[in-house]
Amino acid sequence: MVVKSQLKLIKSLHQKKNRTQHGLFIVEGEKGIADALANDLVPYLLLSSQAQSAINSFEKISDRELSQISALKNPNGYLGVFRIPKQGALNFKDWVVVLDGLQDPGNLGTIIRLCDWFGVKQILCSPDTVDVFNPKVVQASMGSLTRVSVYYESIIPVIQKLKVPIYGTFMEGSPIQKITFRTPGIIVFGNEGNGISAKLSTHITEKIAISSHPASQAESLNVANAAAIVFHEMRR
Amino acid sequence: MVVKSQLKLIKSLHQKKNRTQHGLFIVEGEKGIADALANDLVPYLLLSSQAQSAINSFEKISDRELSQISALKNPNGYLGVFRIPKQGALNFKDWVVVLDGLQDPGNLGTIIRLCDWFGVKQILCSPDTVDVFNPKVVQASMGSLTRVSVYYESIIPVIQKLKVPIYGTFMEGSPIQKITFRTPGIIVFGNEGNGISAKLSTHITEKIAISSHPASQAESLNVANAAAIVFHEMRR
Repeated sequence: MVVKSQLKLIKSLHQKKNRTQHGLFIVEGEKGIADALANDLVPYLLLSSQAQSAINSFEKISDRELSQISALKNPNGYLGVFRIPKQGALNFKDWVVVLDGLQDPGNLGTIIRLCDWFGVKQILCSPDTVDVFNPKVVQASMGSLTRVSVYYESIIPVIQKLKVPIYGTFMEGSPIQKITFRTPGIIVFGNEGNGISAKLSTHITEKIAISSHPASQAESLNVANAAAIVFHEMRR
Repeated sequence: MVVKSQLKLIKSLHQKKNRTQHGLFIVEGEKGIADALANDLVPYLLLSSQAQSAINSFEKISDRELSQISALKNPNGYLGVFRIPKQGALNFKDWVVVLDGLQDPGNLGTIIRLCDWFGVKQILCSPDTVDVFNPKVVQASMGSLTRVSVYYESIIPVIQKLKVPIYGTFMEGSPIQKITFRTPGIIVFGNEGNGISAKLSTHITEKIAISSHPASQAESLNVANAAAIVFHEMRR
């Protein structure tokens, strides 16, 4: 049986400061939880409102309790609390993706999933980027979170002394099909509304543009879609 | 001043049958509404809870009333009701994107935005695809909805007699970088969980695969990200 203090703790994990304090985060959905377990994340508490489940270590919870602690509008019957894993030190021996002020949890989750698909193992986020253990990021990453390491640090001090090419998407860049991608390297994506910050822009060595159709009136590509195209070209 | 019956009508537009009955749909956000007006959509009612706005034909509404009729968890101060526009007949003289049972409103909105970016003007959806005038689709399409026509019809009867190439993404397809895209043509994307239905699969003439990194354990690409890569290759 789940006690009130546990429900209160779980609910508190919707906020970053509490996730950091307790070293815990939420994974919702049977598949996400199974993925986390299969990837050796350490469970703290596994809860389910369903009568039957393939994973038999779930504790029973009522639908009402679940909706109190879920981060989803429509909870899906399973909620796991896991320990935030320790990760190795960031290195620049292969591709590193840098995210500069990304705000939307769905975009971060989708980019983690894309990194996993295209074999990018490290993401460096500016401190103002949405937190990777935000329940909506975890949800959108579809299990890829366990295979991609995400770091938070001030970007410029980390990258300014590196001797690797730094790619970034800009309206006025060179057409992506003419870019040569050299590894080790860094690929930077910016904030949804404002793009890459002015200060970080000065460190970009290779400006990339993804062309729209000449007749298009669309203003911009979604950042996760831009990332999909850049990663595809990088591996092409 | 907005009267109760109007609020009730607007709230009812969250459901497809009411949108169809009244020929009206909701656009939220000042920018989305400005885009709709700039693209000659006919406003039925423009509401705002904000004191100031660049568009001066808004009627005043309280924050409480707005949160009652908004489809957003966090309403953003502006809600417009527009007439569903009439559109011309579907034709196959250029690219047509076919969506087979797409369920997620964010994915449909993002694909509409991608079509706008890459100059695809027509989307044909199976009847079980999420409705294009669903408020979340409108939101995710970021104004592109006014420049892309979206049709709902049973797909196979429409396409089976056409003499154009029909492209679709499959795990076992040919690598996308080896595909020659010939226009006029059709590009099919399937349901988020199940892909393209078995019946429709038999009509695909060109099976496309987007390769993952050899070491990747990721199971799939999000359908909107797959679309981004396919459209980029189609225009490359």
